[in-house]
Amino acid sequence: MVTWLDDVTAKEIRTRSFELAVGERSVPGLLWTPPQGAEAGPLILIGHGASGSKSEGYVVALARGVVRMAGMAVCAIDGPVHGDRRLDGVQSGPLPFLQFSQVWANDPTVTDAMVDDWRAVIDELSKLPDVDGTNVGYWGLSMGTILGLPLVAAEPRIRAAVLGLMGLAGPTVERLRADAMSVSCPIHFLVQWDDQLFPRERAFELFDAFGTTDKILVANPGEHGAVPDAAFKASAAFLIDRLGQAAHRVN
Amino acid sequence: MVTWLDDVTAKEIRTRSFELAVGERSVPGLLWTPPQGAEAGPLILIGHGASGSKSEGYVVALARGVVRMAGMAVCAIDGPVHGDRRLDGVQSGPLPFLQFSQVWANDPTVTDAMVDDWRAVIDELSKLPDVDGTNVGYWGLSMGTILGLPLVAAEPRIRAAVLGLMGLAGPTVERLRADAMSVSCPIHFLVQWDDQLFPRERAFELFDAFGTTDKILVANPGEHGAVPDAAFKASAAFLIDRLGQAAHRVN
Repeated sequence: MVTWLDDVTAKEIRTRSFELAVGERSVPGLLWTPPQGAEAGPLILIGHGASGSKSEGYVVALARGVVRMAGMAVCAIDGPVHGDRRLDGVQSGPLPFLQFSQVWANDPTVTDAMVDDWRAVIDELSKLPDVDGTNVGYWGLSMGTILGLPLVAAEPRIRAAVLGLMGLAGPTVERLRADAMSVSCPIHFLVQWDDQLFPRERAFELFDAFGTTDKILVANPGEHGAVPDAAFKASAAFLIDRLGQAAHRVN
Repeated sequence: MVTWLDDVTAKEIRTRSFELAVGERSVPGLLWTPPQGAEAGPLILIGHGASGSKSEGYVVALARGVVRMAGMAVCAIDGPVHGDRRLDGVQSGPLPFLQFSQVWANDPTVTDAMVDDWRAVIDELSKLPDVDGTNVGYWGLSMGTILGLPLVAAEPRIRAAVLGLMGLAGPTVERLRADAMSVSCPIHFLVQWDDQLFPRERAFELFDAFGTTDKILVANPGEHGAVPDAAFKASAAFLIDRLGQAAHRVN
């Protein structure tokens, strides 16, 4: 069951917030679309990184950019132990980061739960007149790849994905390897050349593992958090281009 | 001294051919521009790969694309032992490739000669009313990087460059390393993930060595010769963007 909360249209962008019940969990989300009355367009999902949330700066900027440039719908939900899933009101910083590290290491169900949450979100948003839930893109770096790659591998409605700032490493490395090998959609993969959290050699192994040959690796200098603006823009353009092509093939 | 040869305008693109005397050498070149009467625009130089020439398919397609998209001037010249520099009329294939390998290994003057040729070309084209020879880009992969990186390092009029399909390897590796370290302009660096001629590890070392932090590495799956169309387009867009910004700053 979904509960729609705020619904605000400003500067030609409509922003809705919602809570979606998935089993015992309540999944907090944001949906950005063109103003009311637009035709059904492709849907882009954004999975934020650890220590962030669905409403952090780069997520909102990316979402609004996609709506403005391409008229597509964009949805972000909070990840586990992040954002409005927390009862303590902490929205960012080291505490959610640390807690996610612990959950990732100790709770093997966390990945499946996030995949389930995203799939329920696609199901729910597909009911809206302005969302084409059969033509979906995924965008997520770092924790957004740790939890998003399994979604991309599992979900045939996802036609293209931006992943990165992550490698074959961490507690779920074997699952990530297997999921990477089963990915068949186009992948735009971002690497930070001097990434201190996930060294580039591990990122190269993940890029190598992707089952699709329609993949591109884009590396920028700098540490984990130093993704340049141009890389956000180019990765969004990749999704817009690929989902636009898919829409064109269907119509 | 320059001798202008053919001058043909078709489909809104003017193509001129020339021979430029540089010392004892005669340098054969092609120049693509908008039709006669255009204002002075930035100049993009294309250095072809071994076994090709200034008139091979991807060079001409790239040149015409840049003229059409951005109204900039584009020039390509034949590399050593290639194209119209040859007396035997051979325009492509294994013989020029083999001979370039030998020249690269045995004649330490070949790099300096090509740098001199390009600099003389910039000087000469700067005299034309439709070329802004102070705002130059360079595009060259493989042999186009082997001979072009030293040019980019030496020539302050070059404001941005596309390089790649090459690594810290080969007879001139120490020069290439030193030249890379002295590069200060933005670099778009292409890697073929499964390059059988220059393994990606060597390419990563070259990318690492570039002295500028304004650099991006873009890797596509496939062997040395399998650069996808999208990579040509994106790399051309990079030069157009950067030279356009430079033109804007000056004006």
